[in-house]
Amino acid sequence: MGERENGEPYYVGIDVGGTNVKVGIVDDSGHSHATASVPTEAERPFDVGLANIERAVQLALAKTEFSLEGARAVGLATPGPMDLPAGVLLDPANLPGWHDIPIRQRVSDHFSKPTILQNDANAAAYGEFWMGAAREAHSLVFWTLGTGIGCGIIIGDSIVTGEHSHGSECGHVIIEMDGGRRCDTGQYGTLEAYASAKSLVRRCREALDAGRASSLSARIADKHKLTPLLIAEAAEAGDELAEELIIETARYLGIGTTTLMHTIDPDMVLFGGAMTFGRNETALGRRFLQRIKDEVQTRAFPVPAAKTVIDYASLGGNAGYIGAAGCARLKFGDVK
Amino acid sequence: MGERENGEPYYVGIDVGGTNVKVGIVDDSGHSHATASVPTEAERPFDVGLANIERAVQLALAKTEFSLEGARAVGLATPGPMDLPAGVLLDPANLPGWHDIPIRQRVSDHFSKPTILQNDANAAAYGEFWMGAAREAHSLVFWTLGTGIGCGIIIGDSIVTGEHSHGSECGHVIIEMDGGRRCDTGQYGTLEAYASAKSLVRRCREALDAGRASSLSARIADKHKLTPLLIAEAAEAGDELAEELIIETARYLGIGTTTLMHTIDPDMVLFGGAMTFGRNETALGRRFLQRIKDEVQTRAFPVPAAKTVIDYASLGGNAGYIGAAGCARLKFGDVK
Repeated sequence: MGERENGEPYYVGIDVGGTNVKVGIVDDSGHSHATASVPTEAERPFDVGLANIERAVQLALAKTEFSLEGARAVGLATPGPMDLPAGVLLDPANLPGWHDIPIRQRVSDHFSKPTILQNDANAAAYGEFWMGAAREAHSLVFWTLGTGIGCGIIIGDSIVTGEHSHGSECGHVIIEMDGGRRCDTGQYGTLEAYASAKSLVRRCREALDAGRASSLSARIADKHKLTPLLIAEAAEAGDELAEELIIETARYLGIGTTTLMHTIDPDMVLFGGAMTFGRNETALGRRFLQRIKDEVQTRAFPVPAAKTVIDYASLGGNAGYIGAAGCARLKFGDVK
Repeated sequence: MGERENGEPYYVGIDVGGTNVKVGIVDDSGHSHATASVPTEAERPFDVGLANIERAVQLALAKTEFSLEGARAVGLATPGPMDLPAGVLLDPANLPGWHDIPIRQRVSDHFSKPTILQNDANAAAYGEFWMGAAREAHSLVFWTLGTGIGCGIIIGDSIVTGEHSHGSECGHVIIEMDGGRRCDTGQYGTLEAYASAKSLVRRCREALDAGRASSLSARIADKHKLTPLLIAEAAEAGDELAEELIIETARYLGIGTTTLMHTIDPDMVLFGGAMTFGRNETALGRRFLQRIKDEVQTRAFPVPAAKTVIDYASLGGNAGYIGAAGCARLKFGDVK
């Protein structure tokens, strides 16, 4: 058991988000054979969530020739905070019904499979490292840009999870020591307080309230909600304020990236997540990345500034379950 | 060869500073059998420096029953910047006559011994990790406070050297993004720009120039040079400005430490180096450390804030050569 007919092991990768559970069946080479996604219903008790996970797993398996019995192990990625050695979810803000859940054991028991738990940003980083834009890299800092700022650090096939499951929480590096903005966790002056999607909206609202001219005022008056997407659309249509706010976000990320380059000194830094403005596919996405790079050039030591590759991630929403499966493979597979 | 009569290997640890070369003969258990120190003469050509290193090695060996021939390997710690994989010193500010020196090969050829090169702060961190205050730790962030701010990060017996030999350069994490102070490397807003001994003196001079009352004004008028030691003495004697400036330094270090706790999440953070104000032996040293801890408590996530041990290092000026010997042991010894 734990392998395909050709003898190659395969894994169930599960990426639990606040909205959806995404599952993929991933073979030992990192190839994804099928995926499925169902609502998490994270505000309901964990038993409901576990049933949803089960449904997503069965939906994905049904699209393949594989069986649950044949899978080697399960990799499970969820938002934190968590106690990784214990396999316990603590009080994840995005999974309000799932507090203090020994989730690794619960999932392992449910599927009768060896199961590993990993932080979702760490899992996505490992996905990019194993199969994505960083697959040739030896070390990686991966930023995931969304409502908050997630991060995962990989050094030579090891994820920096830390001693207390708080490694790679680099959305919470401090970039402004005094009088800084406050992020949702209550910390002041952190990168997340400046560069998250929430902060982008907040900074935009402040500018509009202060009387800055922008096409966004008319959109809001027209009952549109001020969202990162609305701001991005305005920037793409030439709105000066919207462009300025997005490029300012890139500057903050360049500052945080410099701090990481002087700490980890990885050979690659990648940006993924929803707030990447179409990545290299759009002019705005390219300007955003270039502004990050420009900031790094002015701030970092010359050698890492010249040599560190800074780019967008490539796996999109698949990075999490692929990385979760990869973590299961590292722990339970035949990898040396 | 490469071992004592009882079969235990021993190592030559060399710590090159801008002023002195310190050498120790260190056995496989990390016990130091003898040390010697001679002037580096780093402004003269490297050949002179190499002769000084040789002299220090022979002086140390002469105090023991060991021979150079019997040593397993040489561990060499120097200031950076350097290219670690190549074993080359680039343009270290503190070794002005030693630019572009393939120092690992030169030392290895000179002593006919396998030799490993390591950054001095990394070596000191490894010394504390192997034999010092962090010997029970699994991971460590070690700050060395002096003219500049050095750092070494250890995760599970591995030193974070980075892909371009710029890992653990955490004196250059950014703590103030706009309009920040400038450090000697030309970077703005870095921890080093705020918390180094040079910055302490600079901030003191600014305060005196701005008319702040202090006993230091009389000392300077009395031809005393404004140094960190003079400021520390004034603080110990109750000078309000001096105390304030030193405690402010601790606050900056608490901010940088928080950034590292959210990146590495080590189980221990240690402070060593000259600017530690007598460490736990003096009231000022204890207040300094407490202020670092207080800042971390207000800024870090609750779990690492509660669990991470923050303290002074214990090996003092011996950490560098012990750590250098330890690095040689890791690479050339019988360690599994």
